[in-house]
Amino acid sequence: MQKSQTPEYANLDLERKKRTGCAEVVFCEGKATAHLVGIYKCLYEAEGEVLGTRASEEQYLAVKEAFPQTCYDPVSRILKIEKEQTRTLSGRIAVCCAGTSDIGVAEEAAQTAEFFGNRVDRHYDIGVSGLHRLFSRIDEIRKANCVVAVAGMEGALASVLGGQVSVPVIAVPTSVGYGTSFHGLTPLLAMLNSCANGISVVNIDNGYGAGYLASQINRLATDGKKD
Amino acid sequence: MQKSQTPEYANLDLERKKRTGCAEVVFCEGKATAHLVGIYKCLYEAEGEVLGTRASEEQYLAVKEAFPQTCYDPVSRILKIEKEQTRTLSGRIAVCCAGTSDIGVAEEAAQTAEFFGNRVDRHYDIGVSGLHRLFSRIDEIRKANCVVAVAGMEGALASVLGGQVSVPVIAVPTSVGYGTSFHGLTPLLAMLNSCANGISVVNIDNGYGAGYLASQINRLATDGKKD
Amino acid sequence: MQKSQTPEYANLDLERKKRTGCAEVVFCEGKATAHLVGIYKCLYEAEGEVLGTRASEEQYLAVKEAFPQTCYDPVSRILKIEKEQTRTLSGRIAVCCAGTSDIGVAEEAAQTAEFFGNRVDRHYDIGVSGLHRLFSRIDEIRKANCVVAVAGMEGALASVLGGQVSVPVIAVPTSVGYGTSFHGLTPLLAMLNSCANGISVVNIDNGYGAGYLASQINRLATDGKKD
Amino acid sequence: MQKSQTPEYANLDLERKKRTGCAEVVFCEGKATAHLVGIYKCLYEAEGEVLGTRASEEQYLAVKEAFPQTCYDPVSRILKIEKEQTRTLSGRIAVCCAGTSDIGVAEEAAQTAEFFGNRVDRHYDIGVSGLHRLFSRIDEIRKANCVVAVAGMEGALASVLGGQVSVPVIAVPTSVGYGTSFHGLTPLLAMLNSCANGISVVNIDNGYGAGYLASQINRLATDGKKD
Amino acid sequence: MQKSQTPEYANLDLERKKRTGCAEVVFCEGKATAHLVGIYKCLYEAEGEVLGTRASEEQYLAVKEAFPQTCYDPVSRILKIEKEQTRTLSGRIAVCCAGTSDIGVAEEAAQTAEFFGNRVDRHYDIGVSGLHRLFSRIDEIRKANCVVAVAGMEGALASVLGGQVSVPVIAVPTSVGYGTSFHGLTPLLAMLNSCANGISVVNIDNGYGAGYLASQINRLATDGKKD
Amino acid sequence: MQKSQTPEYANLDLERKKRTGCAEVVFCEGKATAHLVGIYKCLYEAEGEVLGTRASEEQYLAVKEAFPQTCYDPVSRILKIEKEQTRTLSGRIAVCCAGTSDIGVAEEAAQTAEFFGNRVDRHYDIGVSGLHRLFSRIDEIRKANCVVAVAGMEGALASVLGGQVSVPVIAVPTSVGYGTSFHGLTPLLAMLNSCANGISVVNIDNGYGAGYLASQINRLATDGKKD
Amino acid sequence: MQKSQTPEYANLDLERKKRTGCAEVVFCEGKATAHLVGIYKCLYEAEGEVLGTRASEEQYLAVKEAFPQTCYDPVSRILKIEKEQTRTLSGRIAVCCAGTSDIGVAEEAAQTAEFFGNRVDRHYDIGVSGLHRLFSRIDEIRKANCVVAVAGMEGALASVLGGQVSVPVIAVPTSVGYGTSFHGLTPLLAMLNSCANGISVVNIDNGYGAGYLASQINRLATDGKKD
Amino acid sequence: MQKSQTPEYANLDLERKKRTGCAEVVFCEGKATAHLVGIYKCLYEAEGEVLGTRASEEQYLAVKEAFPQTCYDPVSRILKIEKEQTRTLSGRIAVCCAGTSDIGVAEEAAQTAEFFGNRVDRHYDIGVSGLHRLFSRIDEIRKANCVVAVAGMEGALASVLGGQVSVPVIAVPTSVGYGTSFHGLTPLLAMLNSCANGISVVNIDNGYGAGYLASQINRLATDGKKD
Repeated sequence: MQKSQTPEYANLDLERKKRTGCAEVVFCEGKATAHLVGIYKCLYEAEGEVLGTRASEEQYLAVKEAFPQTCYDPVSRILKIEKEQTRTLSGRIAVCCAGTSDIGVAEEAAQTAEFFGNRVDRHYDIGVSGLHRLFSRIDEIRKANCVVAVAGMEGALASVLGGQVSVPVIAVPTSVGYGTSFHGLTPLLAMLNSCANGISVVNIDNGYGAGYLASQINRLATDGKKD
Repeated sequence: MQKSQTPEYANLDLERKKRTGCAEVVFCEGKATAHLVGIYKCLYEAEGEVLGTRASEEQYLAVKEAFPQTCYDPVSRILKIEKEQTRTLSGRIAVCCAGTSDIGVAEEAAQTAEFFGNRVDRHYDIGVSGLHRLFSRIDEIRKANCVVAVAGMEGALASVLGGQVSVPVIAVPTSVGYGTSFHGLTPLLAMLNSCANGISVVNIDNGYGAGYLASQINRLATDGKKD
Repeated sequence: MQKSQTPEYANLDLERKKRTGCAEVVFCEGKATAHLVGIYKCLYEAEGEVLGTRASEEQYLAVKEAFPQTCYDPVSRILKIEKEQTRTLSGRIAVCCAGTSDIGVAEEAAQTAEFFGNRVDRHYDIGVSGLHRLFSRIDEIRKANCVVAVAGMEGALASVLGGQVSVPVIAVPTSVGYGTSFHGLTPLLAMLNSCANGISVVNIDNGYGAGYLASQINRLATDGKKD
Repeated sequence: MQKSQTPEYANLDLERKKRTGCAEVVFCEGKATAHLVGIYKCLYEAEGEVLGTRASEEQYLAVKEAFPQTCYDPVSRILKIEKEQTRTLSGRIAVCCAGTSDIGVAEEAAQTAEFFGNRVDRHYDIGVSGLHRLFSRIDEIRKANCVVAVAGMEGALASVLGGQVSVPVIAVPTSVGYGTSFHGLTPLLAMLNSCANGISVVNIDNGYGAGYLASQINRLATDGKKD
Repeated sequence: MQKSQTPEYANLDLERKKRTGCAEVVFCEGKATAHLVGIYKCLYEAEGEVLGTRASEEQYLAVKEAFPQTCYDPVSRILKIEKEQTRTLSGRIAVCCAGTSDIGVAEEAAQTAEFFGNRVDRHYDIGVSGLHRLFSRIDEIRKANCVVAVAGMEGALASVLGGQVSVPVIAVPTSVGYGTSFHGLTPLLAMLNSCANGISVVNIDNGYGAGYLASQINRLATDGKKD
Repeated sequence: MQKSQTPEYANLDLERKKRTGCAEVVFCEGKATAHLVGIYKCLYEAEGEVLGTRASEEQYLAVKEAFPQTCYDPVSRILKIEKEQTRTLSGRIAVCCAGTSDIGVAEEAAQTAEFFGNRVDRHYDIGVSGLHRLFSRIDEIRKANCVVAVAGMEGALASVLGGQVSVPVIAVPTSVGYGTSFHGLTPLLAMLNSCANGISVVNIDNGYGAGYLASQINRLATDGKKD
Repeated sequence: MQKSQTPEYANLDLERKKRTGCAEVVFCEGKATAHLVGIYKCLYEAEGEVLGTRASEEQYLAVKEAFPQTCYDPVSRILKIEKEQTRTLSGRIAVCCAGTSDIGVAEEAAQTAEFFGNRVDRHYDIGVSGLHRLFSRIDEIRKANCVVAVAGMEGALASVLGGQVSVPVIAVPTSVGYGTSFHGLTPLLAMLNSCANGISVVNIDNGYGAGYLASQINRLATDGKKD
Repeated sequence: MQKSQTPEYANLDLERKKRTGCAEVVFCEGKATAHLVGIYKCLYEAEGEVLGTRASEEQYLAVKEAFPQTCYDPVSRILKIEKEQTRTLSGRIAVCCAGTSDIGVAEEAAQTAEFFGNRVDRHYDIGVSGLHRLFSRIDEIRKANCVVAVAGMEGALASVLGGQVSVPVIAVPTSVGYGTSFHGLTPLLAMLNSCANGISVVNIDNGYGAGYLASQINRLATDGKKD
């Protein structure tokens, strides 16, 4: 099959998979529907699968018309076309979140990681105001190669998890909160200043980025790239 | 004894004890030594005791010359003249802090509360990166009428304590940290956004304010002011 | 009666009442209506009463269908199911606010405190630009075990009250104002820097948090937890 | 007398008196001593008097060598050469400040206004945590044509004064405070959001600017510029 | 006529005219229509005239029904009931603005000043990118007892005017601009740091505050309050 | 050997190695010399090796007196006592930095990783203003299991690296720069908003945190923790 | 032809072309439709052409009614009336942007420059996460007299371009991004701190300003103004 | 002559002159003296001249020992080794500054431009509070191919100049000021929001960057790069 032409309104990075291991992913928010469909077509031709984030219901319907196998999840807002064959999920990533309002971002992380072939365990609504919820899960969480900690408000979940596990914790601040949470700035700052080790941080609400990074780490643990 | 005259460079609020229950306390930082001695003299005459915060070694030596019974603690920087008779400490306040660098602020809170006649239990270096340290103390902490939670960096101690006790938690952010801790702004924001209930916050490094407020709450619990 | 199951989309902290003295309270804003009804059902089964904050009219109608005894106040946006027997309100909390636009937040504080069994006196629209309004109420305010001071704009009400009473003042900054009030940041900063003692601060517009904390303090004064 | 030449390292605005009613005033901070002396010489020749602000002891000694009649006040840091004849001070300006640490800025305002020929009444250490101090002075303050309100921390003095007088209140935030006072940003924001009328604000610690403006207003009241 | 009762949802400051020289002014934005009408009724009974700011068309129609003589200006959003007899406007205030988008705020200032009996000259769209527009007006502007300088973007108009006149300049930053104008923060900061003298600043878009203050200053110049 | 007692001024987390895989590391900055020596003694007894960061020359001399084998590097400010036997360094981590002023932070990362047994390749002064320097190294960098990207100013190095490799990039903003670099805030924000994938961020100047995390990731790649 | 009168609601700077080389350009956003049409009429009469930015569809339709030759581009939101004769575009400006979402701002820059008679080459979607896209264009870009670099998120495009060319780079941060991009503040800060030389920055999303400045620079290169 | 080796502690970009037209310039601040001398040696060998900025007296003395022809200017802090032959300065750049405290930054710009072979006219202390100073120079300023506008405080100089000339204005905010000037942030924001056209901005106190860019623009005007 010939490589498809990139549409004129975009300059798709079709070499990305070779260079970084993963094909380009589409940030759907704000894209005109017609352009989005064009981009999905181009990427689908090149890769046979497409992952998009922050998609709207309306964008879903437009892409579905072109590709009936398109899947859309309104919680994570992930819009994807997957390959037909069943994917084996390998390794283990724990995606944790503090409250029910953080689930959308947590799912963006979890589904991104799954799209890239990783097995994901979910541990939701285990925030630090009732620590027994977290501790009842901690043995399961410790089995993962990488932990994603999603939290808004004061973001303390990342610190508490970081003190309990021996693998990397990817902290995702969310815009959940009000007043001085400043749309996620407060948990972001808190996570950057964690007293625990092994924690790094991605942008506010960036579940996708966390899922991508968790996938890289889990892949290193399962496939190795030893020296 | 006649009420002493307020010195000309200050306008001391000698009615404050009647109005609010506690005499005026001296914020020593930045005050000229001669002025500070004058203020201590005036307050000592009026009250027979004086509490000062953020004092320097040099200020201590000057006040000590006038009042040999003056005590100074370089950790909390509290400079006080106490009444001779032994004070009975009543009730119970738990002063907790996250790391060893927070001890100065924690001691300012503890010693302020003790000056006002409250019994204080100290629980230091129990930060959330090793939660077993906090949990080994939690039964003791739960005996208090009020908990003071002192923490810098991400300030998560307040949230974790708030979820474990049934009494008010006074959170004191400290300027301990670097980079994006922004001299205490990050723990302050985190504490204001705590997912736990019963937490209120005072200014950065304001151990005195927390000790004063803890004293008010403990006094209500021990003396009552029922209806 | 058997403890109800927590719904799958939430991980309710049904042990919280035992641990902290108060059952979980529902932050309604942003919750899907169906989920909200499920949470109310679960909490009602466990506790026989439910308190929710920041509810919308639409959420009210949905919960009311399941529990006809549900009450909703559009000013405070509190959505509650109360136990049938009349509650005796004990102790005394003074809820004060600076302007008429602050009343919504003040009512959230007042009704939260009442839900938890506290007697509340209201002193509204007594801002510092006309201090006679505050002073005509000050004797009544001084009878309280705890004062809640709700103010937007420059938030000076908390400082003035703090200088006049001997009990804790819980300051609640509101997002009332424009321009450099920065949606409540200015009164929050002002309250944190109050020259008066005994003041602590909660998040912007967090009437609920203030009411909860006032309840804890008032309970200590009325029930005691002496040593 | 011939107009003096402006020194080469400066481009003095010797027409300013004609245009705005007051000659150029020297901001001494950071100026090299030799340059400062040159500027004083040039302005003295042109005007027969010089006003400088934020001067250091060292700058004073250098200028004094050239002009033995130079006066320096270490509290306000004002460095001035006055005309010999006694000045009649007219009108009335009230300069108020909240705490003893604000006196330096208040004196900069007061002495600036006096330099320009205005009578100044001082009301210091009358902060809002003990309002009786302010109210014991309010009748005197009301006699002024203009009120300068100098305060750090939460800056509430301006709002309280603004509600009690019928003349303009010039609010001067000071850098007095710590933590979230942010070197004067908090009182500045508070003053800009005052619920009282007739208040305007100058830069942090800008006592000079307030004294200058108060002088303009007092002059309008005493000399008039009626229509 | 008997003093009217203040409505229960407000605590009107009916003594304000005696204390500060001007009756209470209504900030209409966000007030429920029924409440607003009640407040207008109460103030009208007490004063025979009412001034309101930031009113909406809808609020106008409701107030007009009760008081057919009500006037509303959609540019300034001022909603007022004036006394019948013709008012003599005295003194002279210059209201200047930088661009056409600043006219709404400038009109709020101008009409407020006129409501309080001051004569106002308007100089609009004279921003510093084309200084000939300002200089063609400067002689007229210099006749005023007080200048109001309204500007968004970089707010340089205040500095330029301050350097050309000998009377107070009240600077009003506006939220006109985009990007790093930060909704008026940039002109506010610029105005606070003006290199010219005699400038003070009010809150962003606070035309009313500037008009009120200009009225106080103009009144001092015309009526005097000499010593 | 018996576990040593933790000194009274600290509450060392001696279980941390078991829980998280690495023993506690000492943040030396601000610690009193006597306390620091005590902490080193306690940790040395428990682990036979100690790693400390942000140490001063003076602290080094004090620790060296107790443990002559102590090593100190003034560039990274790392103060360590290592086990005698030669350590085999396994896997491969690439530590890159943009400019020569970033080397201190880069070395903190590199030496931390080496202390924990990882092999580190250094690629310094390869900032984006001369991309040929980076591209001449890119093949070497691609051999690593994890890349640490250290940069101040605009922090673009992380984005460029992120687009060229298939493994995690840990971005470390530094306080190198002036003016609007805001002591590292600007590169931190830039790194959080990178258009490349697989990038996460640690606190400003937190070389230690990056080295620790890189060690965790490299260990997963070399030792695996497969499922 | 007689100079047209400026409409009463505006004070058009009809001398601007003589003074600065370009006639006034209309910032359409927020202008009332009737006013906008009036301004277009006035400028058209004076200049025979009009350029407007940030126009809406609705404004376009209104202006088109008066001037049927009006052109509107919904991507750049430029609304212009051009002279009939074909314009020769001279010199060469390279307008580059990082992602497809930056194209609106890039087009505002490009079309502004073209309106003023400059030849523009467009290089879109060449962001740094896939540098081969930029390098495949670099020879073309190097032919320009001036480069405009439009980017949101971390804004690294400006630094990379600045390191590759010998002519001025005008950096335009865009509000493209989310979370800590803070509506364009992050790329703005990054661009101001670029490690490359020859870069200057305009306001967020200010494509017009960049196009205007690029035109000035290109004109200098083509027409010269030598000495 | 053979190209010198780059020292091991740096990775000098010796290809920069070929790529961008100017050799690497040394940012001296914070560099160890020995390293600095090494860098000067390496660059001198490659280019026969070296330009360094932000140098200290001590650095000057060390470099002078190696290269006696080294020149240092304590006002601009520029440390340079120039080629022996007299340089012809071509074209014309106007460097303007608002106050005497801005001269250091202005000189950094002017001397940088002169080092690169441009003729520079200086117009200092022409701030907007006395506009006659600027207008007395405006005809000279208009002769330049590029204007550099250096200002602290409110930074209005850039806007006023931008409205008077037809060539690019490079605005340099300085850290001159106090309080809310926020070390140069206020003039930076003001300059970014200028109502005049043709203005772009560099980092705070970045005189070097402005001089470099002015040189690029002037070179385009004098040498051309026409199409």
